[in-house]
Amino acid sequence: MKQNIYENPVFFKEYISLRESGVTYNDFIEQPAIKSAISTLTKKSILDLGCGTGHFARYCIDKGASKVTGVDISRNMIDRAKIENSHEKIEYICTPIEELELHNQKFDLIISSLAIHYIEDYSKLIVKIRSLLNKNGEFIFSTEHPIATARNEVNNWVKDENGNKLHWALDSYQEEGKREHNWYVDGVVIYHRTISTLMNTLIDNGFSIEKVIEPQSIPSGLDKMPKLVNEERRPSFIVIKSRRLS
Amino acid sequence: MKQNIYENPVFFKEYISLRESGVTYNDFIEQPAIKSAISTLTKKSILDLGCGTGHFARYCIDKGASKVTGVDISRNMIDRAKIENSHEKIEYICTPIEELELHNQKFDLIISSLAIHYIEDYSKLIVKIRSLLNKNGEFIFSTEHPIATARNEVNNWVKDENGNKLHWALDSYQEEGKREHNWYVDGVVIYHRTISTLMNTLIDNGFSIEKVIEPQSIPSGLDKMPKLVNEERRPSFIVIKSRRLS
Repeated sequence: MKQNIYENPVFFKEYISLRESGVTYNDFIEQPAIKSAISTLTKKSILDLGCGTGHFARYCIDKGASKVTGVDISRNMIDRAKIENSHEKIEYICTPIEELELHNQKFDLIISSLAIHYIEDYSKLIVKIRSLLNKNGEFIFSTEHPIATARNEVNNWVKDENGNKLHWALDSYQEEGKREHNWYVDGVVIYHRTISTLMNTLIDNGFSIEKVIEPQSIPSGLDKMPKLVNEERRPSFIVIKSRRLS
Repeated sequence: MKQNIYENPVFFKEYISLRESGVTYNDFIEQPAIKSAISTLTKKSILDLGCGTGHFARYCIDKGASKVTGVDISRNMIDRAKIENSHEKIEYICTPIEELELHNQKFDLIISSLAIHYIEDYSKLIVKIRSLLNKNGEFIFSTEHPIATARNEVNNWVKDENGNKLHWALDSYQEEGKREHNWYVDGVVIYHRTISTLMNTLIDNGFSIEKVIEPQSIPSGLDKMPKLVNEERRPSFIVIKSRRLS
């Protein structure tokens, strides 16, 4: 069964509280990077896989997108999205990404922000994404960086007796598959994949790789969350921009 | 001044002795991977950047290449190449890659095996490589993996009191530039670059990324060098296959 951590009430409350603070890794690292990779939103039809509460869907409409379909596994998220980011050009669908069926619909841009590491079968996902993209359409996603997910431990910073971070611990890089992390609650399941798997699966399915971003914090993030300086030491996220060629 | 570690007699003697043993990371990990990435050698004109003693140049001719130009900074290497792997279809040139001048010559395939981490200016190198490639020509290279080069320490395996490897230490990932390693001798200078720099510099210069390999040992390597099992834990090398599009 697919894990849906966002239905866990402890997790969901913490998550929403964090996101609403505006002081998160998403705000200062991941969202600026993924937005920077988008060629244009004007008049584009967009599919947002893992849309959460619809902030990004709303952003797309504000930037001139013609329509957005937002998909999320979490009923909590979709309910909130429909209240907070409702718009006539946005449709929200509550379903696991793996089970999404959109007959005869294709999109100019498919985006997925920090959702793909929850998906077990990456290859099947890419086949599906290709089938949902117009030719020359863009697929842009962020995911936890393979350097961050490789070792299956709760905390991979190795510290000295005073709590100073000595280095990042990496292990089991080539062993793809399930990892259990702690993120507000224990046992959050994600899937580790190598850089080469992330890239080659796209290439083998007729995508070109257009840009790879290993983002660091924007300057205001370093003021508000000083620990983000640690992104210089090891990347938390990777953003890949690709295009369906044929 | 460019470092040419291969002119250090201590280093060179050790290096040759190791390579001639046939029991190396090159034999079991890097060479099988880079060879697997080549589409075809038949009737191809090939430039080998960092050709060493010419083993790969000779391999290309044996596989039907029409000509090979082998380039190496080391006079020791080129002298040996001319004795051991001389062939009428192979030309050897002793020069730093950065200073190579080949007027009006273009190649179908440019290959570089574990040399690019010695080059300080990667961007300038890629511009040069593009100028030396025929349209649709392939550029395939191996380099030390960014995971392996990020932290500037001699040994990045963290061990317990019994010498067992606990994990790989990673740090300073985003800080590109000079690293000093120990490899037979102290102070071997290499340059660390991120995954995104390796990829984006190619893409920005009109190359497509065709394959990314993070190789592990071939089975016979695990028999002869049991420590190669550690490649499962962290990759030593990365191989990138690219193609000049325009």
